[in-house]
Amino acid sequence: MRTVEQAITEIVEFLRRAVERCGFRGVVLGVSGGLDSAVAGKLAVLALGPEAVFGLLLPERDSAPETARDSLLVCRHLGIRCRLRPVTAILRRTGIYRWVPPAGLFPHRVRERYALRRFRREAEDGYLQDLLSQGGERFLQGLAYYRLKNRVRTALLYLEAERRGWAVLGTTNRTEWLTGLYVKWGDEARDLQPLLHLYKTEVFELARALRLPETILAKAPSPDLAPGITDELALGLPYTDLDRILRKLDSGEELSSEDPRQVDRVRSILQNSPRRQLKNLHLGSPLP
Amino acid sequence: MRTVEQAITEIVEFLRRAVERCGFRGVVLGVSGGLDSAVAGKLAVLALGPEAVFGLLLPERDSAPETARDSLLVCRHLGIRCRLRPVTAILRRTGIYRWVPPAGLFPHRVRERYALRRFRREAEDGYLQDLLSQGGERFLQGLAYYRLKNRVRTALLYLEAERRGWAVLGTTNRTEWLTGLYVKWGDEARDLQPLLHLYKTEVFELARALRLPETILAKAPSPDLAPGITDELALGLPYTDLDRILRKLDSGEELSSEDPRQVDRVRSILQNSPRRQLKNLHLGSPLP
Repeated sequence: MRTVEQAITEIVEFLRRAVERCGFRGVVLGVSGGLDSAVAGKLAVLALGPEAVFGLLLPERDSAPETARDSLLVCRHLGIRCRLRPVTAILRRTGIYRWVPPAGLFPHRVRERYALRRFRREAEDGYLQDLLSQGGERFLQGLAYYRLKNRVRTALLYLEAERRGWAVLGTTNRTEWLTGLYVKWGDEARDLQPLLHLYKTEVFELARALRLPETILAKAPSPDLAPGITDELALGLPYTDLDRILRKLDSGEELSSEDPRQVDRVRSILQNSPRRQLKNLHLGSPLP
Repeated sequence: MRTVEQAITEIVEFLRRAVERCGFRGVVLGVSGGLDSAVAGKLAVLALGPEAVFGLLLPERDSAPETARDSLLVCRHLGIRCRLRPVTAILRRTGIYRWVPPAGLFPHRVRERYALRRFRREAEDGYLQDLLSQGGERFLQGLAYYRLKNRVRTALLYLEAERRGWAVLGTTNRTEWLTGLYVKWGDEARDLQPLLHLYKTEVFELARALRLPETILAKAPSPDLAPGITDELALGLPYTDLDRILRKLDSGEELSSEDPRQVDRVRSILQNSPRRQLKNLHLGSPLP
């Protein structure tokens, strides 16, 4: 990324060209109230105009209380049409809510503490085991639990997009892609991925330059799939450190000034994250 | 494929090696009552033993009346554990059933005639328009309708697999892959794809050699997503002709003995099918 302005221009042009060449009439975007979807949405509005961008809000039982409110704030800020469609009823039908304490009976804060304890107790290193899809029964159940939500949201975004002949706009960034911080066939499964070349900290710079609402800029990045589990808690280090180390590894730069424990952490994540990209293994594909 | 026996041995060894190397403990398979899932299931049983293969049966309102019965027949034949989990209630919650005449009010045969008329009337060339995701409002709605089912099934297969630490076994064959006869991020989205290198007619040969039940061998291949719409109806020519022409195109063989209308048909399908494979388009990816 040379300058933030150039980065914005490049993405806007990419979106305009891609939508035209593929014959899409607009884009549907899952708005989570987080930073990435707000940035992707703003770029789409700049490229296509607000009438060609549709926001789908898909909160469920475990979503943070502020999720729906912040998502609506983003849609109003972007001036796009949107639809609030809670997915709790659909997810309830799959039976997964029977696996965890019933919502409503406990306030969000209590469920947060419960999810945190579970994340820490059920696995020695939750994130690495998540990347490998390996662990004890309860841990695996937790993985299946949160990934289903992500995949059901993907299916609903496509339902909304395909009945209009529109594309589904993605929000995955380069940091998430490299570290495997996405759900296989879930939030990675999109028609267009305008942020895939940008580190998370660069997306943040774009968000500032695009003057997104302060509430959105100030939130701790979180997948919002289990109460209280943030990105940085899962990854085990702050995004600023992670991105700096990732960049240095990318360019072969000297790492001696970095905290060796952080470098080790990033290395073990990178060692295990390609596991998530193993897909459609067949007779001709190399095995891990 | 040299001989049918060699092909079977190769796949069995691939499955055994892939499951071991990836650390999966078994495979979950969506059993549809059709040929491909029966063949994939039989190969998995040969590779891993019946106790490491689990069949998930996911019929819904529009499934053919024989779907559940034939799927159970396959599971019994394979000697695997299975679960019948109709997805009608989940799909109803998404609202899609309001788009088409209510089931129950009309017998299956009437709904078949309705679906066929709709398929023929709403599009000049249904399958090509499907590959391009382009068409009028009603046609696009039909695409979104059937694709949702496919993606929801995928999400449920992963739910069943991931909570056990198992892989999801796919059934996509080479003919489907080349002609785009699959749903983007739907039935193509699997961990292991043991049939991806085989033409449909080769899968059929394997099915015979593996002595699958006659009922399964005799069925007309169909995605079973809308009543009465078979693969060959969508594709516009029989699999035997399609595969013969695909093989000749593959090997650069002479086509003069083929029906020129059929060759044209296959060529237009191949021209448009890569469209389905456009995924996660980003700044660095070539546009169509």
